[in-house]
Amino acid sequence: MTLSPRQVRVIGIGTGSPAHVTGQAVEAMRECDVFLVADKGEVKDELVAVRRAICEELLDEGSFRIVEVPDPERGPDAERDKAAYRSGVDAWHAARADRYAEIIEALPEGETVGFLVWGDPAFYDSTIRIVDAIRTRIPLDVRVVAGISAIQVLAAEHRIVLNGIGQPVHVTTGRRLLDEWSPQLGTVVVMLDGHLTCRELVSRDPGIVIHWGAYLGLPQQVLRSGRLADVIDEIARLRAGLREEHGWVMDTYALTVPSAPPRA
Amino acid sequence: MTLSPRQVRVIGIGTGSPAHVTGQAVEAMRECDVFLVADKGEVKDELVAVRRAICEELLDEGSFRIVEVPDPERGPDAERDKAAYRSGVDAWHAARADRYAEIIEALPEGETVGFLVWGDPAFYDSTIRIVDAIRTRIPLDVRVVAGISAIQVLAAEHRIVLNGIGQPVHVTTGRRLLDEWSPQLGTVVVMLDGHLTCRELVSRDPGIVIHWGAYLGLPQQVLRSGRLADVIDEIARLRAGLREEHGWVMDTYALTVPSAPPRA
Repeated sequence: MTLSPRQVRVIGIGTGSPAHVTGQAVEAMRECDVFLVADKGEVKDELVAVRRAICEELLDEGSFRIVEVPDPERGPDAERDKAAYRSGVDAWHAARADRYAEIIEALPEGETVGFLVWGDPAFYDSTIRIVDAIRTRIPLDVRVVAGISAIQVLAAEHRIVLNGIGQPVHVTTGRRLLDEWSPQLGTVVVMLDGHLTCRELVSRDPGIVIHWGAYLGLPQQVLRSGRLADVIDEIARLRAGLREEHGWVMDTYALTVPSAPPRA
Repeated sequence: MTLSPRQVRVIGIGTGSPAHVTGQAVEAMRECDVFLVADKGEVKDELVAVRRAICEELLDEGSFRIVEVPDPERGPDAERDKAAYRSGVDAWHAARADRYAEIIEALPEGETVGFLVWGDPAFYDSTIRIVDAIRTRIPLDVRVVAGISAIQVLAAEHRIVLNGIGQPVHVTTGRRLLDEWSPQLGTVVVMLDGHLTCRELVSRDPGIVIHWGAYLGLPQQVLRSGRLADVIDEIARLRAGLREEHGWVMDTYALTVPSAPPRA
């Protein structure tokens, strides 16, 4: 007996507001019988709750199930050793893929599986990698639907264009920012930076302007912008306070050096 | 008499499919009485037609008007002189802003003006800059709504993550690609490249992989991927043929060097 491949939809849902979801994403969500959601067993439960709320708002009651998949334990933190960090991430992804493959195999035949991705599956999200790994274990037919990413909400809410005229945009992580920083990179968007690493750049380049946002797209959204040197202390205080208040914080920011290309 | 500022909505509508439009964008479109659309007096009329079709599909008949605004003449082409190029672009934007300001001032008071932006207003689009320039002439109250960009549709249709694990993503133009290229940049996404400049990189880095797409999101969408050295000739032939067939072509591509960071 040959099984036909399991239908899988990887769907970007934007950054929390049901209003971010595209028509195409709603259509793909309607095709799904069951949504698999990583249960990180943490305060980020709030993010699972937001996903559930989006399904409830956009889909018919009783037309879908949500299954929480507990995340495997992460290995020891290897902040300083890049090779160990990468192999740790790989092992952890493999364990996760095994778990998902088991759950998917146990589903009734013909059911379509959905993964709802915060933001856009193409930017700093592991779902496509997990699905690719599951596909080495069981046959899948995968379609991906783009979603509005935090980067875009950041720009829209600040009403800025990310690129200077004819200039580049560089998206990187807090971990890499100090090694990579150069005004030649154009606007630099920083993801996954729990430490506001940009503070270290104040002395290197006093002209840098920051556009920062937390909880982008959510009701508790907060924005700040200005010369990095002038606003970094306020942003750091604000961020710590918000983290305290909500139990978690997600933020991102864009750095520009206005001198080089003329902006608007 | 003080006039209250004119309400303006800059709305990203994705890359041509009405299914790309978010709920938030539809809501913002409904607030608009009149959409201003640049008339480039060219074969790109097809893009104006797509915008019109999106309005007709998503809005009530008779609830909106579309006004085509003829683009001012561009100055002499200054491909080689970057300063002249930039000042030419600036002068052309100023003339465009004057024209838009006149049209907006002549509209009935209280009407809301919409700009429908192909893709996302934050990426390689001049609308926000034009609106900022109009705002130096007449008072505007501007809101921006993000849209799905060609970059995201490219990634979704190829089912790829743009960043390697913990790695950066660099977005640049065809004009800058050869000067900027380095595997250190992570995945490099190239916009506005009418010449498939990436061909010049084959000799520099034979391992480069390309994910290419034209008319992303439109019914005539075409995708190709593979080792750059293997597929660049086919893509160039295909692109020339498509341009011939449709009278215009819009495409974008992503370059990765798979050796460095493990992908999936």
